[in-house]
Amino acid sequence: MNNKDCLFCKIIQNRKETFVYEDDRIVVLLSKFQTSTGHIIITTKNHCESIDEISTDDYFHLQKILKLYNKKLNAALKPEKIYIILLAEEVPHIHFQLIPRYKGNTKGPAFLTANIQEVKNPEDLIKKINYEKIL
Amino acid sequence: MNNKDCLFCKIIQNRKETFVYEDDRIVVLLSKFQTSTGHIIITTKNHCESIDEISTDDYFHLQKILKLYNKKLNAALKPEKIYIILLAEEVPHIHFQLIPRYKGNTKGPAFLTANIQEVKNPEDLIKKINYEKIL
Repeated sequence: MNNKDCLFCKIIQNRKETFVYEDDRIVVLLSKFQTSTGHIIITTKNHCESIDEISTDDYFHLQKILKLYNKKLNAALKPEKIYIILLAEEVPHIHFQLIPRYKGNTKGPAFLTANIQEVKNPEDLIKKINYEKIL
Repeated sequence: MNNKDCLFCKIIQNRKETFVYEDDRIVVLLSKFQTSTGHIIITTKNHCESIDEISTDDYFHLQKILKLYNKKLNAALKPEKIYIILLAEEVPHIHFQLIPRYKGNTKGPAFLTANIQEVKNPEDLIKKINYEKIL
């Protein structure tokens, strides 16, 4: 079920060029605002504002995809660490962010706002990172 | 398997007074440094530095417990939102933090470092919050 006032519901319907992966329940998309190169978002197709609202089965499915993309990011980009966060503050639709932290980057919470870059051409960046090349 | 140099491995072995929940694979414990009241940590008993290292079954078990405690925190403390984060930067042993964000608190990443309080008596706080009273 979509919510017409929700930015994420709109993105899921209208911004397929940002998609890295899609199935019947989940979308993985490139964050428009990259905290670091490769920063992706795992979100539900249906509007949902808390993990309390989704079934264990749907939550496990989301986490299975998150775990897979954690591995893909590590293999493709070789960061020192991948931060996993769910704040969903500006947009209440739940979305887990996978944010690679590279050698030399600021560490800890300060990294989350240190150097955000807007992506102009998501398709080019997705192609460059090639999330699918490994596994 | 424990790592003798890991702070979390030591806490899991020696700080049972901070435990909110424990089973054969997972510990939920009260964070010694409370970003906000109720701040808990879900971690693996075995030393592990990336979610890539654990089986899907063990990861689903961790996430099942995380989802349950998200619901318990919402029921017990009624925050506006619960932030879920895995940074594991100062201590590399993976640990998901559930951080309730209450009405009037700073929002977004700045909240993570805004007002951290050290807990002197974890047992008293666990008793006061009573994570087990609901569900």
